[in-house]
Amino acid sequence: MSRFFSEKFASLTPYTPGEQPRERKFIKLNTNESPFQPSAKAIAAAAEAAENLQLYSDPTCKRLTEKVAERYEISPDEVILVNGSDEVLNFAFMAFCDKRHPAVFPDITYGFYEVFAELHNIPYEKIPLREDFSVGVEDYIGIHKTIFIANPNAPTGMTISPADVERILQSNPDNVVVIDEAYVDFGGESCVPLTRKYDNLLVTQTFSKSRSLAGARLGFGIGSKALIADLHTIRYSTNPYNVNSMTLAAGYGVLCDEAYTQKNCQTVCENRAFAMAELKKLDFEMTDSKANFIFAKHPVLDGGELYAKLKERGILVRHFEKPRIREYNRITVGTREQMQALVDAVRQILEENR
Amino acid sequence: MSRFFSEKFASLTPYTPGEQPRERKFIKLNTNESPFQPSAKAIAAAAEAAENLQLYSDPTCKRLTEKVAERYEISPDEVILVNGSDEVLNFAFMAFCDKRHPAVFPDITYGFYEVFAELHNIPYEKIPLREDFSVGVEDYIGIHKTIFIANPNAPTGMTISPADVERILQSNPDNVVVIDEAYVDFGGESCVPLTRKYDNLLVTQTFSKSRSLAGARLGFGIGSKALIADLHTIRYSTNPYNVNSMTLAAGYGVLCDEAYTQKNCQTVCENRAFAMAELKKLDFEMTDSKANFIFAKHPVLDGGELYAKLKERGILVRHFEKPRIREYNRITVGTREQMQALVDAVRQILEENR
Repeated sequence: MSRFFSEKFASLTPYTPGEQPRERKFIKLNTNESPFQPSAKAIAAAAEAAENLQLYSDPTCKRLTEKVAERYEISPDEVILVNGSDEVLNFAFMAFCDKRHPAVFPDITYGFYEVFAELHNIPYEKIPLREDFSVGVEDYIGIHKTIFIANPNAPTGMTISPADVERILQSNPDNVVVIDEAYVDFGGESCVPLTRKYDNLLVTQTFSKSRSLAGARLGFGIGSKALIADLHTIRYSTNPYNVNSMTLAAGYGVLCDEAYTQKNCQTVCENRAFAMAELKKLDFEMTDSKANFIFAKHPVLDGGELYAKLKERGILVRHFEKPRIREYNRITVGTREQMQALVDAVRQILEENR
Repeated sequence: MSRFFSEKFASLTPYTPGEQPRERKFIKLNTNESPFQPSAKAIAAAAEAAENLQLYSDPTCKRLTEKVAERYEISPDEVILVNGSDEVLNFAFMAFCDKRHPAVFPDITYGFYEVFAELHNIPYEKIPLREDFSVGVEDYIGIHKTIFIANPNAPTGMTISPADVERILQSNPDNVVVIDEAYVDFGGESCVPLTRKYDNLLVTQTFSKSRSLAGARLGFGIGSKALIADLHTIRYSTNPYNVNSMTLAAGYGVLCDEAYTQKNCQTVCENRAFAMAELKKLDFEMTDSKANFIFAKHPVLDGGELYAKLKERGILVRHFEKPRIREYNRITVGTREQMQALVDAVRQILEENR
């Protein structure tokens, strides 16, 4: 830390992203990336956009915004595009939380929520998930705070129903409820339709997972016009050209190829079912994940130890050294071959451990 | 504004970017873009990166960071890469300004400084430029505040010398001095070498202007290791994957083709001299711009009127409806043909106006 760093950040602990090793070739099952290349339409569109990078990207992101609106059957002024969905989450913490509107989110969820709250000096509370890792919906009824819920949740993959989200929305009419749907395309049920009915709902999504654009950085938020306008105010006060031209083009290309996205999502769901069935045979306990990852613990093998032994064998998974979940590993669902390699490696490790 | 918007932003006025019309084809001289396509190496590298967008970009930006460090003869931990230099400026306002370290900058400069200060509720002061639009260096000596100076300044294009920057640095040892060098490659003198000597200097630059990557969003900051570490703390608490894979690749490609950048900068300088000579014949008064734009006013023709009449003729320039500079227009230096078209249009407008 320099002697110039504002003391308000003196105790700030940044987010720790998953390992992104560049030196060695791993079977990478640690950051929930898609195992499939982007749509050929996305690749071609991005390459074409690269030829005219001397011009600024469109700060209104008009063309892609309209395409997203069409896809989700909403109006373009109910969408904001961002440089990865972390950006819209950051904007939402800025816009809709303060001392009068503290933030709440589960104790076990996407780790960035706490970082954003700390960064912006927003009072916040972590509400423990139930013993079985489900979100205790009753805990959020009428709490009159700004609520952040990942649905499916990370790293558990577990969902709450839109009906439950609706109860939360109705009982907190004076606060925004943010539903983070980064993983919704792998079996979750989206709350986007509820944005038509509730002006206090913001749904965030990403092109990083189901749409194979993690490296392009593209996310979006959907909500009432007024909510979205507020987020644009923050965006235009931060970085109006936040989404670059190549990414705008790639996102458009992806949305012109929905069949490819659907097929990939289906394959991931099948591979998840396969891997979970195999891991169950090896005595793993797993949550009911509707995401592109599995959250698994073994009755005998320590979570941290499994992570380390898989890494030795060239397979990266994500281990969180945190209370309640340190016995678990979060394993991204990849190709069938990757899942087979994972299961084989786990079996070997278990055998060696006997 | 929604009823949920935090009241701390109630009076926030966002930055207004220059017009980016998509409907009609203009000669675009309003946002200081390069008239030249990116290096072929950048285009090819970006296109190749598009093929693997399913993987996250490297959050450490290792390869490009090392390349920038090599180019500027510094260490990689003295560089931070960002999603356009606005991002590092935003981070600098967050990191190095607060109630104990108010911000100061000229009254006439890049409009975003004021927006960042407002956004983060940072006390700030605008120091008037001298009558001739030069930065009054004495005004910044020993003021013990966090100083932001664009050098060359925008929209004047005027410079201060590294020797003057050094005096400012020496007399404000307990505050960061940010030198925004977005336009330095068109005849300015960089303060990057001073970062070796002063731990309170942060220099920011961009790939948007001289390097033809405006649409890719790539900027960087250079400073002491400790300063850069602070900015990384903010970055990792905001958006660790802030620069996408295609842009990282494009930036690397550009730096492998320095001769192309140099040649383009030289052409811009020649075209600037040509256009200024022609406009002088038409009685324009201009600042001594070392940037890729001209800042010009006419003794008779109103600034806003010239802007509007050029727009009618398909030429976009930038007019700021602000005190002290509303008689001026900021005109990006484009190709020789574009400059000729500008001069011809201005001549016609003046003739019609007689």
